[in-house]
Amino acid sequence: MKTSYRISYPSSRKVYLSGKLHDIKVGMREVSLLDTVRIVDGEKVHEPNAPVILYDTSGPYSDDDTAIDICKGLPRLREEWIERRGDTQVLDAFSSEFCNSRLADSSLDAIRFPVMNMPRRAKNGACVTQMYYARQGIVTPEMEYVAVRENMNNEQLGISTHITPEFVREEIAAGRAIIPANINHPEAEPMIIGNSFLVKINTNIGNSALSSGIDEEVEKAIWSCKWGGDTLMDLSTGDNIHETREWIIRNCPVPVGTVPLYQALEKVDGDISALTWEIYRDTLIEQCEQGVDYFTIHAGLLRSHIEFTKGRLTGIVSRGGSIIANWMTQHGEENLFYTHFDEICQILASYDVGVSLGDGLRPGSIYDANDAAQFAELSVLGELTEIAWKHNVQVLIEGPGHVPMHKIKPNMDEQLAQCHGAPFYTLGPLTTDIAPGYDHITSAIGAAQIAWYGTAMICYVTPKEHLALPDREDVRTGVVSYKIAAHAADLAKGHPGAQVRDNALSKARFDFRWKDQFNLALDPERALEYYQAGRLGQDSDHCTMCGPHFCAMKLTKEMSECSMVKE
Amino acid sequence: MKTSYRISYPSSRKVYLSGKLHDIKVGMREVSLLDTVRIVDGEKVHEPNAPVILYDTSGPYSDDDTAIDICKGLPRLREEWIERRGDTQVLDAFSSEFCNSRLADSSLDAIRFPVMNMPRRAKNGACVTQMYYARQGIVTPEMEYVAVRENMNNEQLGISTHITPEFVREEIAAGRAIIPANINHPEAEPMIIGNSFLVKINTNIGNSALSSGIDEEVEKAIWSCKWGGDTLMDLSTGDNIHETREWIIRNCPVPVGTVPLYQALEKVDGDISALTWEIYRDTLIEQCEQGVDYFTIHAGLLRSHIEFTKGRLTGIVSRGGSIIANWMTQHGEENLFYTHFDEICQILASYDVGVSLGDGLRPGSIYDANDAAQFAELSVLGELTEIAWKHNVQVLIEGPGHVPMHKIKPNMDEQLAQCHGAPFYTLGPLTTDIAPGYDHITSAIGAAQIAWYGTAMICYVTPKEHLALPDREDVRTGVVSYKIAAHAADLAKGHPGAQVRDNALSKARFDFRWKDQFNLALDPERALEYYQAGRLGQDSDHCTMCGPHFCAMKLTKEMSECSMVKE
Repeated sequence: MKTSYRISYPSSRKVYLSGKLHDIKVGMREVSLLDTVRIVDGEKVHEPNAPVILYDTSGPYSDDDTAIDICKGLPRLREEWIERRGDTQVLDAFSSEFCNSRLADSSLDAIRFPVMNMPRRAKNGACVTQMYYARQGIVTPEMEYVAVRENMNNEQLGISTHITPEFVREEIAAGRAIIPANINHPEAEPMIIGNSFLVKINTNIGNSALSSGIDEEVEKAIWSCKWGGDTLMDLSTGDNIHETREWIIRNCPVPVGTVPLYQALEKVDGDISALTWEIYRDTLIEQCEQGVDYFTIHAGLLRSHIEFTKGRLTGIVSRGGSIIANWMTQHGEENLFYTHFDEICQILASYDVGVSLGDGLRPGSIYDANDAAQFAELSVLGELTEIAWKHNVQVLIEGPGHVPMHKIKPNMDEQLAQCHGAPFYTLGPLTTDIAPGYDHITSAIGAAQIAWYGTAMICYVTPKEHLALPDREDVRTGVVSYKIAAHAADLAKGHPGAQVRDNALSKARFDFRWKDQFNLALDPERALEYYQAGRLGQDSDHCTMCGPHFCAMKLTKEMSECSMVKE
Repeated sequence: MKTSYRISYPSSRKVYLSGKLHDIKVGMREVSLLDTVRIVDGEKVHEPNAPVILYDTSGPYSDDDTAIDICKGLPRLREEWIERRGDTQVLDAFSSEFCNSRLADSSLDAIRFPVMNMPRRAKNGACVTQMYYARQGIVTPEMEYVAVRENMNNEQLGISTHITPEFVREEIAAGRAIIPANINHPEAEPMIIGNSFLVKINTNIGNSALSSGIDEEVEKAIWSCKWGGDTLMDLSTGDNIHETREWIIRNCPVPVGTVPLYQALEKVDGDISALTWEIYRDTLIEQCEQGVDYFTIHAGLLRSHIEFTKGRLTGIVSRGGSIIANWMTQHGEENLFYTHFDEICQILASYDVGVSLGDGLRPGSIYDANDAAQFAELSVLGELTEIAWKHNVQVLIEGPGHVPMHKIKPNMDEQLAQCHGAPFYTLGPLTTDIAPGYDHITSAIGAAQIAWYGTAMICYVTPKEHLALPDREDVRTGVVSYKIAAHAADLAKGHPGAQVRDNALSKARFDFRWKDQFNLALDPERALEYYQAGRLGQDSDHCTMCGPHFCAMKLTKEMSECSMVKE
């Protein structure tokens, strides 16, 4: 196993911004730029360009001063903050039966994560969620951290911002934003998901029964962070889910989400009828104590909704939704996640695990978009939101799916009307069904729009959607496509400081500072590669697009009093 | 030189739909589908799925019954229609001096297109544009052709449609739509560009001084038609533009556009100051007689506008715009395209060449979007539209560029307010500047939106935008990305019959008719390739995404009374 991974970006260094309330160091990426060089009165004049500070999801992997050892895990950044609050205890043993049976199985020693961290849980009677603290008027280090992170260097640039630590607290208290921050995942850097903040993107990784090993999944997780993934869902359905997840969480600088149902079903060998509340409950506790930051739970799909899916073109396309619908049909009972929702929330509140209310009835085709099935479930998600908030559990609402453009705003509006302002977290949506192989694009079109209308986090879709599991390159393409959608939405929403990067890149382009153009790009390596493919061995201030006589930017400069020269 | 190209699509055949007013055969692609197979009471029941008729831009290349010889050119579909109108004459000689000098140059014999077609021009006093006919109340074969083509098989499917030949005539007469159809390009199949019709996409090909030969350009043109390009702009700026263009036009089943200024400037070796009206005029005539269907002309950028670009971040990024701005600055004169616009229209009307009013001041960065420079020019484009229409010349209005999402609708609204309903034809727009290498995606996001708001044609952007000339694979990626944007807009606009393809593909997906899913996709080859990459040698009814236990669609079916079987 490869034990050290590094993430590096060209002309970039890791910098840390400080807080004012707490002793925090917020890691950012600083890109240094070349000078703009002009000829004025026959003399070269250098004009420096200020470095650009970028939001950075790569965590310690891009900090050369931090030792990285996959077998030890990342530094436990938040441990001291959690400790200091004095409302948690470190347990003597894991609370999950399944976890203990895995620990007792020596045949798993070879694949087990080498360091054992005992789990932490709220002391009896205590609530340890960020929502609880916010409602008490407490600005936690996590809240200040995200405020600094969201602002990049707006203060230095004189860009006014609404995002203060106190504003973060208010948004968390109101449920309009969440900081997924399990007390058992202290390695993760705090980040915030909410309509008033930068749009975030989630990436899905995970093996199915048929492919991928632990090494590969850990590498994919780090790879996703490199390109800008804000959170990561581990959707593994194969063997050794427990051990794989441990490796991922211990080495993951961003929040990790799961769908616990997948693992619960593995425990009964895929036999849906054998699934019980006890097995599911033990799975929740197992994962809470490992450090999963948010759970997708399909608690809003009720028995009465199944009828609504009969007239659909593509039935139920959510895995979790189809499993729970089958369970209800086989047992003739109401959804067990719905009937046990209070108890679920009690468990989650003891670890600060967020609930991402799954949309088991999301439309799987244009034909099924915004139908009665989806909206009936959405209304129940609103009901469940209020229950979760009663327990101070942080909530996300999951959304579609396949939606044509003219139905995207109505879908967003319905979510706002039904779910009391809880952040929306959508898969795309895909704006047409006819482009398998390009669904990162069909869905980036929809994701950009729904994010502009108010969706807080968009879940990426890769080119392999509907066809196969994504490989490394698919993850990269999916993440970058969604960073584009998220950033386009940030610009459209006028997020403070979002346009700084566009302006710096465009100025570099106009100055023919090619390197700066690449280095400020979402994917510097790809930009450079394409540029070089077109160079044909030349080194000049024009590209193959226009040839030497026709470059518009060059001609524009020739009109100006002082012309530009290439560095 | 390879002389025969074929385009084939899986499980597809060429079919021809007839007209009612004229003896026309409208080529379409018919995709045949497998049966849906269900188990009912233990028996397999086959339910046939009707074939799907698709809009087809591949022309005779996908018709096995038509002989293809690149050295002879395509069949001259429209020649008889044009002839029968009796308002044109075949000239004894070409009218352009430049053209005649090329013909006289025997050193060019080796690269010359082997067949010489003498040019056709309006008889003295006659007007031969589709707009003129429409205003006379005449429904031409071209108008009926596009009505049939736009409707695919809506009639058979019982889908009501507003698109009749008479409706087409009204839209053309009002200037709200155009059929680019030079009388010297009878090989092209008629197609229509207008807000009430299917959204069209344009692809740019063409060599710069540095790359690409004739073979390669012809192949790129056919390749673009294969993937769905509706029109094609030849933006060559290198040597032998005249001969390259002849090869392309004679073999191109879709309308061809150019920017005549590029060639005019080549004629003076790139010396902008040496550019004259006489050289430009001769270039227009040269290209009119070759069969170019529409010209981009940057006639709306006036001397007074240059001042507005001074505060821009990226100045003038349109090649044509920067050339004419330089020309005005050097000569101290008004834009020669503006001052000669009446004469330009007279020439264009004699051949039915459309004018695509270029946006020389389109914004090249988010910072410059929707600024005074762009809108000042747009207002002049509105003025010129009325002049062109006085001459019965068909008009397109070109648009940006780089525009953040919240400024896209205002941009479209401004075009509608200024340009009297003439069709809008935009480049993207790109919704952020920060993703060189992925600008097909940044711009597909914007293109889908602006097309939904009313843009009639969107000009593709490839992954190499800003970096290098596109190669074959880039053309494919660019075209498919833009077909996605156009189709997403057709769905959002509720274009009659647009959703038939989505529904058929989604039904195939739900039925596990994998082949049908691929065959109905915009890029069947890519879909199949990705699917196979994930198969790992299996042949089963689940894919690597979910593994055998977790397929939502399979589980949904298991809930139904009658379950599905794989064919």
